[in-house]
Formats: sequence, C-alpha cells, structure tokens
Amino acid sequence: MCAAAVDKICVIGVGLIGGSFARALKRGALCGHIVGCGRSEQSLRRALELGVIDSYSTRPAEAVAGAGLVMVATPLGAMREVFSAICPALDAGAVVTDAGSAKAAVIEAVVQACGRLPANFVPGHPIAGTENSGVEASFAELFDRHRVILTPLPQTSPDALALVRGLWQQIGAEVTTMDVDEHDQVLAATSHLPHVLAFALVASLAHRSERQKIFDYAAGGFRDFTRIASSDPRMWRDICVDNSRALLDALREFRADLDQLAAAIEARDGDRIIEVFSAAKQARDQFVADKRKRPGS
Amino acid sequence: MCAAAVDKICVIGVGLIGGSFARALKRGALCGHIVGCGRSEQSLRRALELGVIDSYSTRPAEAVAGAGLVMVATPLGAMREVFSAICPALDAGAVVTDAGSAKAAVIEAVVQACGRLPANFVPGHPIAGTENSGVEASFAELFDRHRVILTPLPQTSPDALALVRGLWQQIGAEVTTMDVDEHDQVLAATSHLPHVLAFALVASLAHRSERQKIFDYAAGGFRDFTRIASSDPRMWRDICVDNSRALLDALREFRADLDQLAAAIEARDGDRIIEVFSAAKQARDQFVADKRKRPGS
Repeated sequence: MCAAAVDKICVIGVGLIGGSFARALKRGALCGHIVGCGRSEQSLRRALELGVIDSYSTRPAEAVAGAGLVMVATPLGAMREVFSAICPALDAGAVVTDAGSAKAAVIEAVVQACGRLPANFVPGHPIAGTENSGVEASFAELFDRHRVILTPLPQTSPDALALVRGLWQQIGAEVTTMDVDEHDQVLAATSHLPHVLAFALVASLAHRSERQKIFDYAAGGFRDFTRIASSDPRMWRDICVDNSRALLDALREFRADLDQLAAAIEARDGDRIIEVFSAAKQARDQFVADKRKRPGS
Repeated sequence: MCAAAVDKICVIGVGLIGGSFARALKRGALCGHIVGCGRSEQSLRRALELGVIDSYSTRPAEAVAGAGLVMVATPLGAMREVFSAICPALDAGAVVTDAGSAKAAVIEAVVQACGRLPANFVPGHPIAGTENSGVEASFAELFDRHRVILTPLPQTSPDALALVRGLWQQIGAEVTTMDVDEHDQVLAATSHLPHVLAFALVASLAHRSERQKIFDYAAGGFRDFTRIASSDPRMWRDICVDNSRALLDALREFRADLDQLAAAIEARDGDRIIEVFSAAKQARDQFVADKRKRPGS
C-alpha cells in the first residue's frame, strides 16, 4: 500500500537524485514497489542489492508498465530519448515528473518526444545534491527540508500536480511552484553560474605551468570554493547546454560586474573595492543567517 | 623561559592570525611573555581577558621594547605605518617577521618605512585562515600542519630566518621558503583570485532584482562556493591593492579561459565543455586526495 495513492513507482535514472528519491520513499513507507530503470544493468543490480529499488529493467517502456508515478531523474541529455520510449507505454492516468535542472529544456524534450505536453506531466526540480554521483552516493535524507520547485504549465492537471507535490512533502521537502523561465534564471544564477566558475577556475589553474605548486599551497578556502568542480562533468555539460540562454545571461551580467571590479583593482580604488566586498559580505552573511533559520533548504 | 630563545614576543595586530599565533605559542609554552599591540584598546583588553596575550600597548614603539621577536599581523594597509613606528624602537638583534598575504608589497613597505631592508626582517605568510576575523575567532590550532611560506631575501640573516622558521615549526606548521614573486603569483591564483570571484559573484547577485528569490533557492553548493565572500572586506581590499599586479595577471588568464568556455556553451559544443569540466574535476579530485594524505596543509 502506498500513502501517496500509487502502489508502484518507477524511477528512471537511479543515481544520486533518483536513488535518494527511492530511498526516501522507502524510509517513509510511501510506496509498495519501486521499479528502477537505467542504462547500466550493473548499477541497477547494485541499487537492488542496496535495497533502493525492488526490481529493475533497462527498458523504459517495460519499467513504466503498471506504474502510477514515473520519476525521470536521468541526466538532461538522456531525457528526450527516455520520454520517447515511455510516452506510448505509460498506463492511463500515470503521472510523470522529473528532476531536471533546466525546466524549459525538459519541457521542450517532452513536447518533441510525445508530440504534446501531457496533462499528467509535472515538471520538477529538487534543489539538492552533492558533488558525488551514482546510487552509492544516494541517501534518504537528501531532500529533508530542501526546496523542490515545480513548474506546472496551464495544461498541467491539478490532480497530477497535487500528487507530485504531496509525495515530495511526505518525503520531507518544501515544495514551491514557479514559472519555467523564472526557475531557469534563478537556477542559472545560484547554481549553474557558480558551477561554471568553479570548473573554469580549476581547469584554468590546472593547465598553468605552476600547477603542482598552485595546488600545493591552496588552503581550506580553495577547497570549499572548488568543491562543486568535483561534480559530474557530463551532468553539468547537459545543464550548460540545456540552460545555455539563462546561463549566458547570468554569465554576461557577472562578467560586466567582474570587469568593473578588475578596473577598480587596477586603479587601486580601495573605496570602490570595499563597497563591492562589503555588499557581498552583507548579502552572504544574511544568506547564511536565513539558512540557519530554515536549515537544509 | 622560551623554547625559541626569545623571552618576550610582541604581536602587532591581535586578530585571527596574530591571536592564533599567540595562542599557539602559549599552547606550546614557547614564550615567557607576549605583548599585544593594536589600534583598539577594547580589542586588546579582550585578548588579555581571553589569555591570548600577557600585556598590551596601543603604541607600537612601546610594545616592541624588550621583545626578541616581533610578529606584524595587521592588515596589509596598516603595515607601513607600523614599520615606521617600530623601526627606530626595536631592540638590537630583535627579529621581525610578518603574516602579510602579499610579500612584495610588505617588503616595499618595510623599505619605505625603515629606509632599507633590515637583515633581521623575515617576510612570512601562514597559509591559514577562516572567513571570520578578530581575536574572538582565533584558536591555537589554526596553523597545525598548515603551510607557512617564508620569502627571505639575499640580505636576510640566516639566524633570523632560522629563528622564525623554528618558531613556526614548534607551533606545528610546515615551513617552506619561496621567491617573493613566486609567492605572490601562487597566492594570487589559489587565494586572491577565488576571493575576488566569490565577492564579485555574491555582490553581482545581490544587486539583481531577483535578489531575495535568488538567495532563497541557493543550496549547499552555493554556501560553500561563497563562504570566502564572508571574509573581512578591508583585509581583502588591502590584499587586492597590494597584490594587484599578480592578481590582475591571474584574473586576465582566468577571464580568457572563461570566455572560451562561454563560447563553447554558446556554441553548445558539448565535447569542449566536457573537456574543461573533466580537467577541472580530475585536478580537484587529485587536490583533495593529496590533502587527505597531508591534512591541514
């Protein structure tokens, strides 16, 4: 029996996000049976051994049969193929949601794959993750008190939205809804741009001749600053490609501000420098204080 | 009695670094008496209450009287004034060192203040710190197994160098020596540039209209990435101004690499993107693995 009114849930892409979603469902005894689906049978077998899923198939059309809810948690680049495979195979009334980081691109992939946007599709994005990937890195608490953004469209069925929202809430997440473009812009700024900067910085330093010495003398601040550069390159390539418009907008804006700061440094304009740094410190300290009030989000 | 062959040590600037240096000396029972010196009597009184120092003076010339070793751990912007005050007041044979993050600028300040580079001056830089500042944030373990870079010059006295090196080692730090310019370049790349990027990003996001929403939806990756943006703005202004040449070089190089990456994202050149991200991940994972072998450094 399933508290969320679905007996069988199919998770396509049983990695960090999909695996943690399945673990959280199991922790809450929220579902009778979880079918895992993915490309690598080895990884699915491992998920089964770990008790993350109850059965698996490498064929999406087979995996979704009988499922009342399908969670697509693959990398963005694989979504169109997945949706093409599952669209004709879904049970009548099955609700589909996803965990993709770029909502406009996922919606476009669904439309291209299914010929239309099904009313039972609820675009979603849990704001959670670590720099690790794969089912081994998954854990049931990943979404606890973390935000999940749903970006329903006018044609999205209210019942489907309620089902997905309820499931995330029962898992312990804090669900909000947002406009698709707004989601893509906010995430470009807070997540995609920082990742690009961290990747770019470490790559830039790594190809410099002093490389060994540079990393030898890096301290704790550098370790934290670059943690996200240890994230999965393929996943982040997909995000960059699929949210390129919003990301490039955010990057352009940042570049303009960085150029101004560089000019102030070149001019040794201490007042201007301190103005920028103080604004940053104030905003960041406020951000941390707010987080303390609402931990995990 | 003092294991490092100095009975009295004067710490000018009893903040995070100076305070932690004093605490570490006390922890190791390495010195008989520590005189603190700074601008704020209130802060010095707090340092005395905390047992970080044994006495204090707000006048540098008074504070250094009788001290066998003087550690200047003020912000870079205050160093010239400090050296001007202490140069004529130092005991014969007193060794002076500092903890400034930009070595060429400190050496220039010493030369300007003292009219020459005293043989007993040993330029130094402990690669340690947190985003917090002030004596309240100081702790004796800050330098444990952390690197300290000394940048002696041809005229630096070998005995003075040995004294400073020995003291840091007794505190638990790992001491290396480096050329002044090399130090400034390496630190620009691993520390100053990341700080500038973090400050610039948070300031850039903070002045965008979506500010509240942006920070609301930022997750753990953002918190770590921006931790260094909570650092002391004045201290970092000084570093940017005093190491501007090396910092701007590093920034230019990074900017060129970032522009190439942005072009690849704009062209949706997945292969190129993944190449950069993979190089970054590999270097960063290696960096973390190396750190695990030599923790704290």
